[in-house]
Amino acid sequence: MTHPVLIADQWTPADASGSFNAFNPATGQELTEKYPVSKWADLDRMLDTAATASRELRKVEAEKIAAFLELFADRLDANAESICTVASEETALPFTPRLKDGELPRTTGQLRQAAAAARSGSWSMPTIDTKNNIRSVLGPVGPVLCIGPNNFPLAFSGICGGDFAAAIATGNPVIAKAHSAHPTTSRMIAELALAASRETGLPSGTVQMFYRCDPNDGLRMVADPRLGACGFTGSRHAGVKLKEAADRVGKPVYLEMSSINPVVFLPGAIAERAEALAAEFTGSCTMGAGQFCTSPGLVIVIDSPATKSFVADVAGKMKSAAAGTLLTRGVQESLVEGIGQVVAAGAQLLAGGKAVPGPRVAVENTLLSVSGSAFLANPVQFQTEMFGAASLFVIADSLDQMVQVIAHLEGNLTGSIYWSQQGADGASIGPVTAALRPKVGRLLHDKMPTGVAVSPAMNHGGPFPATGHPHFTSVGIPASLPRFGVLECYDNVREPQLPASLKNKNPTGKMWRLVDGDWTQGDV
Amino acid sequence: MTHPVLIADQWTPADASGSFNAFNPATGQELTEKYPVSKWADLDRMLDTAATASRELRKVEAEKIAAFLELFADRLDANAESICTVASEETALPFTPRLKDGELPRTTGQLRQAAAAARSGSWSMPTIDTKNNIRSVLGPVGPVLCIGPNNFPLAFSGICGGDFAAAIATGNPVIAKAHSAHPTTSRMIAELALAASRETGLPSGTVQMFYRCDPNDGLRMVADPRLGACGFTGSRHAGVKLKEAADRVGKPVYLEMSSINPVVFLPGAIAERAEALAAEFTGSCTMGAGQFCTSPGLVIVIDSPATKSFVADVAGKMKSAAAGTLLTRGVQESLVEGIGQVVAAGAQLLAGGKAVPGPRVAVENTLLSVSGSAFLANPVQFQTEMFGAASLFVIADSLDQMVQVIAHLEGNLTGSIYWSQQGADGASIGPVTAALRPKVGRLLHDKMPTGVAVSPAMNHGGPFPATGHPHFTSVGIPASLPRFGVLECYDNVREPQLPASLKNKNPTGKMWRLVDGDWTQGDV
Repeated sequence: MTHPVLIADQWTPADASGSFNAFNPATGQELTEKYPVSKWADLDRMLDTAATASRELRKVEAEKIAAFLELFADRLDANAESICTVASEETALPFTPRLKDGELPRTTGQLRQAAAAARSGSWSMPTIDTKNNIRSVLGPVGPVLCIGPNNFPLAFSGICGGDFAAAIATGNPVIAKAHSAHPTTSRMIAELALAASRETGLPSGTVQMFYRCDPNDGLRMVADPRLGACGFTGSRHAGVKLKEAADRVGKPVYLEMSSINPVVFLPGAIAERAEALAAEFTGSCTMGAGQFCTSPGLVIVIDSPATKSFVADVAGKMKSAAAGTLLTRGVQESLVEGIGQVVAAGAQLLAGGKAVPGPRVAVENTLLSVSGSAFLANPVQFQTEMFGAASLFVIADSLDQMVQVIAHLEGNLTGSIYWSQQGADGASIGPVTAALRPKVGRLLHDKMPTGVAVSPAMNHGGPFPATGHPHFTSVGIPASLPRFGVLECYDNVREPQLPASLKNKNPTGKMWRLVDGDWTQGDV
Repeated sequence: MTHPVLIADQWTPADASGSFNAFNPATGQELTEKYPVSKWADLDRMLDTAATASRELRKVEAEKIAAFLELFADRLDANAESICTVASEETALPFTPRLKDGELPRTTGQLRQAAAAARSGSWSMPTIDTKNNIRSVLGPVGPVLCIGPNNFPLAFSGICGGDFAAAIATGNPVIAKAHSAHPTTSRMIAELALAASRETGLPSGTVQMFYRCDPNDGLRMVADPRLGACGFTGSRHAGVKLKEAADRVGKPVYLEMSSINPVVFLPGAIAERAEALAAEFTGSCTMGAGQFCTSPGLVIVIDSPATKSFVADVAGKMKSAAAGTLLTRGVQESLVEGIGQVVAAGAQLLAGGKAVPGPRVAVENTLLSVSGSAFLANPVQFQTEMFGAASLFVIADSLDQMVQVIAHLEGNLTGSIYWSQQGADGASIGPVTAALRPKVGRLLHDKMPTGVAVSPAMNHGGPFPATGHPHFTSVGIPASLPRFGVLECYDNVREPQLPASLKNKNPTGKMWRLVDGDWTQGDV
């Protein structure tokens, strides 16, 4: 039996053009659960339902939306064991600590933070100009299509992840596209979401879900007038197509796509703590089989005997670390192909490079190196993303060349600089920072990029092609919420017709509002 | 002699493919001043210079940027007489009150507000998470190409208008494209900007200007890696081309394009004050010869004897009001063509419709009407923009049909609702608001849209095609500044390397920062 899709609060047999099976990457075998490829008719019904839900949600008080998010989080926690068991089977990500102790608590934490943000309302930046009686606030953008990635079955999932939490907290219904790498996980979660939505009394269709569709129908959906916005985490290839379809009709689309996360090791840091850095780098690069958007895929160092020894040490550590199981055959094929492209461009293979033989879906931990001058001769190809435990060391012949290499980078989510604690890199940090800062969303010191704290100050974003717009972050609450808000201004509108957040009386007594240029929690 | 362009703080002979003359629309004659059409080489040099200036500006304290904006504003005020004389000659906009008493003070007011915003730094939303030691702030996006419109030679000008002020205040150099409708005005202003920049000691190339280029070179410029962003006010035709070029490379582009600004008169309002409303509407529609982005180009009413009489009264007032002089021959031709399209779709001409004979560039004040059902049969063509003193009344047969008409509108900058002061429209305001709110950036009650206050709560923005992104406003300070900022995060960065706004000590003692979830002007 092919599983139904979730439309208008009902599990409904899909109008399907075909089906696909869930897959176990640890065994390389298909699982028995079968899921539909929806035709346009399914998506069309979801859009109709979501448009109605969007209008209804405008009348729902924030407290009820917050209650839904919290109840949903509670249910996820209560079902952690079964959800993480299935998620582990579908993704080969370890049940523990990764899923049950890491990703699931992160996910429910995000939902609860989003609930608190919805309740407070401060995320919407209510702004009041008493002299002119003009008031503005970020209002809900409309139904949000949430397309999650393969690598986080929970924390970035379209049905319970960061985009979901942000879209709901800002008062928008969600149409989730489950990722084909973890459909059963998504289905179990959607059941909990539906129950929580019903029990809280949210409008029908606040949460809907399908599994897969023809890519052209996906593009059509993104451009549909009934849709408000799209949140996407995934490949650059798919992301730019969605972006083009949405851009053509001026629809907000928030993409987190491709990033190789440059790491700079300055000579002073290598001199002080080479061994610790090699271990730290290897741990970060191989964590989760390297399947993080912030995995360090490019390292920039300056040539020296100490650097040569450091690189050799890293290569040894990469070889001796176990090769993790990858999420899908597609990830495995892309990774081998990406490594091949970097080798073809002239990089030297220092470790790994090949698929691991046998049924398990895996690739050897891979390290490559190239000289700074070779990199500069072909910077585009050397920035080919290798999604997995693979990284390219660029060995510059000088600080100047290191800065040149950085200047030739595309946009990235993160950039890390390791530098001397004792001042030896004092003359280098300035030019390196000046070059790196405009290339990345998050600049780190002495820290690997793989940890992405759910912080109000986080930026999980950056210049294209890391994302589609460098103004926004997809992680961090309330920082990620304004993506799903549009600026709504009220000019001379009579007070009873104003949204609660813009009336003279502060609706909660705690909401931060910008009144005549100053932030205040008071009344007008 | 063809005038030079402003590159790297020097008035430089253009590498020109041709030239054009300034034009006086009141006489229909060319003026003697001749301006170059720049080849790519000019733009290329400007981009190089701006990229360097952008790096230099990061080191310049906000105080100096504020001082520049204020000195520039002072110089504009001191030269108001000569600037407004020339601007009036080039645009036929009245020297007074429009230019000298309205637009020029608005322009210098914007520059001074931007100076205050730069000095305060609160616009950049510094956000500090002390527990995780993660900090973020909006940093400068990079060089901004400012392309101003024909209809505001000062307040929206690329060389001194709202986008200019916002781009400079956020720490970015500006490459201005002067509008061909007022090149001499722009040149005079650029001279003042250059002098102020030099006297303040800003980096060379902080302010540059050219006049015209091949449209393909414009698209190339928008996509150039050296450019940070583009701010554009103008036609939908040009805007969507720029948008496509910028979107393809993930470059922020902020467009204010096309809007017909629906006005709803509910029956109770017409019953109470028909004559006053007719006068108010006619004044708004004919103001500035209707050449405002917020000119009321579409009116929606419900049929009744009172409505018929109201429409007839408006038609009479439109006929008896003087036809203003338009900015250019192009505006005249587009307006006549737009009216023709609406007539061809089936609208009835109630007043005007033709070009005014003689050398002066003008079109009769024009009023049209169409039934709600005819509108609904062809909503796209009936939303053809008629840029000038022209408006289409849509006469619905019921409240339901009025709501249907609103539901078929494209995105607009504004939407106005006039309704009974005595409660007669109490049952209508809900459904009308629910339909109109998601279609517009600014919702007004009992007010024409043509006034656009420079308020922190203003939204001069809205859904596509009014703009390219419904999250942002191009008017309002500091509200318009974040367009030219990108989210920059600092994770574990050592304090001496943090920007001043993110250090523990509040750099001014007054900057608003979001510290651990609360807005504060204190230190960490």
